[in-house]
Amino acid sequence: MVRKSELKWTVGWSRDPDAAPAKRVPAAVPGAVQLDWAAAEGWGDYCCADNFRQYAWMEDVYWSYLGEMDIPDLGPGERVLFVSKGVDYRLQVRHHGRVIHDQEGMFTPFEIDLTGRAQSGDALEVLVFPAPKSHAEPADRSQANQSCKPAVSYGWDFHPRLIPLGIWEETYLEVRPVCHVRDAEVGYRLADDLSRADVSLHVDLSEPGEGKIRWTLSDPSGSAVIQRETLAASQTVTLSAPLDRPELWWPNGQGDPALYTSVVELLDASREVVHRSQSRVGFRRVRLVMAPAAWDVPMDVPATRCPPPITLEINGRPIFCKGSNWVAPEIFPGTITPETYRALLDLAKQANLNMLRSWGGAVVNKDAFFEMCDERGILLWQEFPLACNRYEGTEGYLAVLDRESRSILRRLRRHASVAIWCGGNELFNPWSRMTDQDAALRLLNRNCFDLDPERPFLATSPLMGIGHGCYVFKTMDGREVFEIFAAASCTAYAEFGCPGPPSADALRRFIPPAELFPPRPGTAWETHHAIAALQPNSHLTLDILEDYFGPAEYLEQLVEWAQWLQAEGLRFIFEEARRQKPACGMALNWCFNEPWPAAANLSIVAWPCEPKPAYYAVAGSLRPVLAGARIGKFRWSAGEVFDPELWILNDSPDPQPPGRVEALLRMGADEMPLGAWDFPPLEANTNQRGPVLSFPLPEAHTDRMTLILRVADRPELDSHYHLLYSRRPPRDGTAS
Amino acid sequence: MVRKSELKWTVGWSRDPDAAPAKRVPAAVPGAVQLDWAAAEGWGDYCCADNFRQYAWMEDVYWSYLGEMDIPDLGPGERVLFVSKGVDYRLQVRHHGRVIHDQEGMFTPFEIDLTGRAQSGDALEVLVFPAPKSHAEPADRSQANQSCKPAVSYGWDFHPRLIPLGIWEETYLEVRPVCHVRDAEVGYRLADDLSRADVSLHVDLSEPGEGKIRWTLSDPSGSAVIQRETLAASQTVTLSAPLDRPELWWPNGQGDPALYTSVVELLDASREVVHRSQSRVGFRRVRLVMAPAAWDVPMDVPATRCPPPITLEINGRPIFCKGSNWVAPEIFPGTITPETYRALLDLAKQANLNMLRSWGGAVVNKDAFFEMCDERGILLWQEFPLACNRYEGTEGYLAVLDRESRSILRRLRRHASVAIWCGGNELFNPWSRMTDQDAALRLLNRNCFDLDPERPFLATSPLMGIGHGCYVFKTMDGREVFEIFAAASCTAYAEFGCPGPPSADALRRFIPPAELFPPRPGTAWETHHAIAALQPNSHLTLDILEDYFGPAEYLEQLVEWAQWLQAEGLRFIFEEARRQKPACGMALNWCFNEPWPAAANLSIVAWPCEPKPAYYAVAGSLRPVLAGARIGKFRWSAGEVFDPELWILNDSPDPQPPGRVEALLRMGADEMPLGAWDFPPLEANTNQRGPVLSFPLPEAHTDRMTLILRVADRPELDSHYHLLYSRRPPRDGTAS
Repeated sequence: MVRKSELKWTVGWSRDPDAAPAKRVPAAVPGAVQLDWAAAEGWGDYCCADNFRQYAWMEDVYWSYLGEMDIPDLGPGERVLFVSKGVDYRLQVRHHGRVIHDQEGMFTPFEIDLTGRAQSGDALEVLVFPAPKSHAEPADRSQANQSCKPAVSYGWDFHPRLIPLGIWEETYLEVRPVCHVRDAEVGYRLADDLSRADVSLHVDLSEPGEGKIRWTLSDPSGSAVIQRETLAASQTVTLSAPLDRPELWWPNGQGDPALYTSVVELLDASREVVHRSQSRVGFRRVRLVMAPAAWDVPMDVPATRCPPPITLEINGRPIFCKGSNWVAPEIFPGTITPETYRALLDLAKQANLNMLRSWGGAVVNKDAFFEMCDERGILLWQEFPLACNRYEGTEGYLAVLDRESRSILRRLRRHASVAIWCGGNELFNPWSRMTDQDAALRLLNRNCFDLDPERPFLATSPLMGIGHGCYVFKTMDGREVFEIFAAASCTAYAEFGCPGPPSADALRRFIPPAELFPPRPGTAWETHHAIAALQPNSHLTLDILEDYFGPAEYLEQLVEWAQWLQAEGLRFIFEEARRQKPACGMALNWCFNEPWPAAANLSIVAWPCEPKPAYYAVAGSLRPVLAGARIGKFRWSAGEVFDPELWILNDSPDPQPPGRVEALLRMGADEMPLGAWDFPPLEANTNQRGPVLSFPLPEAHTDRMTLILRVADRPELDSHYHLLYSRRPPRDGTAS
Repeated sequence: MVRKSELKWTVGWSRDPDAAPAKRVPAAVPGAVQLDWAAAEGWGDYCCADNFRQYAWMEDVYWSYLGEMDIPDLGPGERVLFVSKGVDYRLQVRHHGRVIHDQEGMFTPFEIDLTGRAQSGDALEVLVFPAPKSHAEPADRSQANQSCKPAVSYGWDFHPRLIPLGIWEETYLEVRPVCHVRDAEVGYRLADDLSRADVSLHVDLSEPGEGKIRWTLSDPSGSAVIQRETLAASQTVTLSAPLDRPELWWPNGQGDPALYTSVVELLDASREVVHRSQSRVGFRRVRLVMAPAAWDVPMDVPATRCPPPITLEINGRPIFCKGSNWVAPEIFPGTITPETYRALLDLAKQANLNMLRSWGGAVVNKDAFFEMCDERGILLWQEFPLACNRYEGTEGYLAVLDRESRSILRRLRRHASVAIWCGGNELFNPWSRMTDQDAALRLLNRNCFDLDPERPFLATSPLMGIGHGCYVFKTMDGREVFEIFAAASCTAYAEFGCPGPPSADALRRFIPPAELFPPRPGTAWETHHAIAALQPNSHLTLDILEDYFGPAEYLEQLVEWAQWLQAEGLRFIFEEARRQKPACGMALNWCFNEPWPAAANLSIVAWPCEPKPAYYAVAGSLRPVLAGARIGKFRWSAGEVFDPELWILNDSPDPQPPGRVEALLRMGADEMPLGAWDFPPLEANTNQRGPVLSFPLPEAHTDRMTLILRVADRPELDSHYHLLYSRRPPRDGTAS
């Protein structure tokens, strides 16, 4: 049978790839060389203050891992392999000083057969090259424009300059029978009416064997629905079988994410199981389709094209995609465990998200992420590792991109959750300057079509009709998101955001006490992105806060104000996008999580896994059914007419019964009735627009007013909108 | 040595593919079954009146060609092959009743080795299946949506329903040595600075031979610049050689279209030449780039992508592409000869065109077309055979499209003139309803990237930023093209048109005398597209003519008026597109030619090769350098202020000296000075905007006024604009 064993690792560095490191320290595998070195040197937490600056020199040296091997005794016909699922980024494997493997790219796993070549006590050296940089200066993300290394680690508005290097994925020795399963992949083709799947199994053996292959496919309840057995007599074996009425996989909120289990067993001549491979499969059809009526939008002459489709259809049903942009949950992906993903993805599911855009600036996640998304019905928009750069199609770059993208495709295409491939982030915008003609993107389209033709492919985001931005509660010209998004008409909002800080407690964990209040440039507020991130004032936007609230007197007050804006801004945008359905098919805020503690950021879950108030606002605005209101602005004053427009939003697959909404306005201790609406029954996945209320605002001694929508007998549909009641005149005439 | 011989062909039809035709008639090869049958039956010319209706039944029967073979005596080791460069559309080749070849697709050539299988006096049967139709009704272009058959022949606004079938390309017997050259293709890679080409030759032999391959590349003057010789010892042979400072190929108006000649000779053991293959190669680099400043156009939030690039760059120089849409010059492509192409392409070159868009609704042209475009510096935007349909990605269709597109790619990628690949016509518009996600278009992108990665690929036209239309001088809402295009801001105008009839003499050739005047529905005016083509009144637009001129009294008057509008409309649009350079990179009117005599059409050259007045207007507006004017409208009246804006347009690669333009207005016999402009020197490929003149129009006894621009000492820059001077009030208040 197959057995694994770990190597005993140390790591050291030198400036010469052929010189031995002056010193070695214990290494965690998977992990990152930076963390091993910092631990050995006793450095402070890189998340605190500006400790990360200490790591800068590590980008440019060679890191030598030494793995001492304890090779088990091999039975007859057994092989021992060195297996690595990923080394970051450019590497050589050496044995007795000889290079036995040479690779650029962290997403392509490799195996080296050591049988007869190595013995216990030998060491394998994994030499990791300096971080790839296409030029020496400037030291920013553009240095990543000729590699498949996630660009975010070269410095971003929410990520310090800190470039991970090292063995980031499981890496071990494995003893296997000479004939073993290299890969087993289940594929299927669904009948047009989804009533039947033609299921196939492709097994790739290390070499033909004497025994047999046994395949069992079990339904979600565990009952075997397909059982097949065949000779393992050729290196590639394909089995196929029909499956009538497969239970379909549905995204969160639309049904169960039904998963079947496939078990492939390799039997030897005496029918002993000598190798076993297990995977899961969700049956579903995914398409990008035009929004209803999108073909009928009148066009002036000269006429151009209709915008590309971005309405996702699962199993023939249009799904309003509501979710968030996912970034790496840690700076060092080697430290990510299944538990890291689980906590965050549970939050995502609980907040009614059904999609995450796995952003191209970040690392492509580990297997556990995709398994958990499969289980939770979280659709994935998965990008290749290109972001905000001009990735020129040089021969060397294209060769690496070709190999890395094929590895990513072969690994991830098995997952029901993966709904869309995308070439990368914001490549057709001025800060990237790539175009549809770029070889890198044509190559990705080609590889996706060759290896996974059924899944939609987008060259980048945004595309025509798709919107990115804005990333503040109020733009420089004084427009609030309330106004901007009510006037917008995108087919999808693939990025938008309002910034907010984490809790004051969280801030105290990484901002030195002396720097804590008030936030100032040149402190940890700045290194942790609250000041001068995207804009001089982002992401804390002290100017906007002061405009609405005046100067804050203490940290907790500042945090409360900023979190309030973030929550109400996102609540409005998500609900507005839902109101624009079906012309709009998608709303994904920037961003869900963050890779380290930001002092202010657009994330709704602070690192490592602490929901901000905005998280709960988003969860509310993404309930399948809710009573909602389109509100014109955030700041209101006495004498103005408060005029919310009432809505029932429904993106569930179920029709909704009629009902009654009562609208109340709470100001201080008072609750004043604004009106009521008897709404009609709603069809599945259909909204209903209601009346515009009209209420002259009285003088009141409060800073806040709350619109409360109460739905008779269905309190789960109730909503609250927390608005500013301002006794101060606005600083200027705009967006008051 | 290689020798060809023709077969002696007859053709007949039956409703049963396995039944012998009741009758056979002599067949012309290449040709079309319809023409053979019509000739034998003595039918009237299909171009006249509605004679073409007689052909309808021919779509749905099986056509059996019988080719009697006279096989030459074969020398030692010689082979005899049946060679066909194309049969339209679905075919079987049978010999003694046995199917020896079976194919769907007219663009994939085939060869059948008959050596030892056939003898003189044998006949080969080429069985042509009924025209492909994806459904029985409606009998329109949508029937072509599951085949690679040009959709135009299923009926179009300028093409009758008449679907060619038969052997449309050269088809013959050929005796060759057993080892012969199947294919020899020259490729090259240009250095970034264009100072050097790494030239390669790939030879595909029928089988390895004893002899040698001799390769000679000669420069345009005939001097050999590369000579190589190697053994013919393997089936595929690659030779490569550097070429310093290659003479570059330039499009019309930008320099010489320098062509090198490659000769590949197969030498036998005694160094006798036993096979010879010759081709030409033009060295040039082609790219689609963003227009200058296109990245800097400000974008509101939410921001979308920048439009895709459509500025063509040849050898690093942006080229303003000015040209026309090319359709098939004959309904039956089998009748097209090199002379057909030559006459039309000479006209294109003389009219200063540098680009033709080879439209996807039509047949992909024969080799002679591409050779002549290479020679004339006519850039080609070459589409695959998809147009105005939803080509669903069924397995069967994709298999044919894959094979056909690869054949097209392998044949045409050798031509310097081919600048852009395009998936097909208007596929992302409501009347087609394809999207970026369609498998057919992803497959074409994949095949282009695999087989010809350096050449730009567009999924379709229009794309974002590109305009199609309008196709009338004045739209239904009363806007003239003068107004529409001055307000438009497309990156390229890939289709636009104004209709016009051919000469009265031409009309008399195919409209029966009784139907000639006035044009009426239900006559040959309608079957020949002057009435109820795209719109009730197109393409003659009698309503617009009457609005400007009142009712016509006789044919010649009607023709003159309509041709006037066409000429002035196109003159305006082409010059306006040039004024919008560099934001606009391309202007291609719909269309250059036509496949049969249209009574009114958007073409500027009437079938078969008769320039309309609009042709000369276009030729004038496409001069490399000219004095031009932006004029607000076509119809003027006394008391209005005539206010042309003066321009010097220059898209030549040469700077222009300063000069003086005088503007005059001719009304009847009077020539009145409007003003003069001393224009400064112009840089290469740069326009200069001049003053707006202002001239109150006097009362005059004329129906026409002509703006004359005279350039001192450079009469070749002079321009004339013929406008309507109306003493009648306009019919309504719009566009007066």
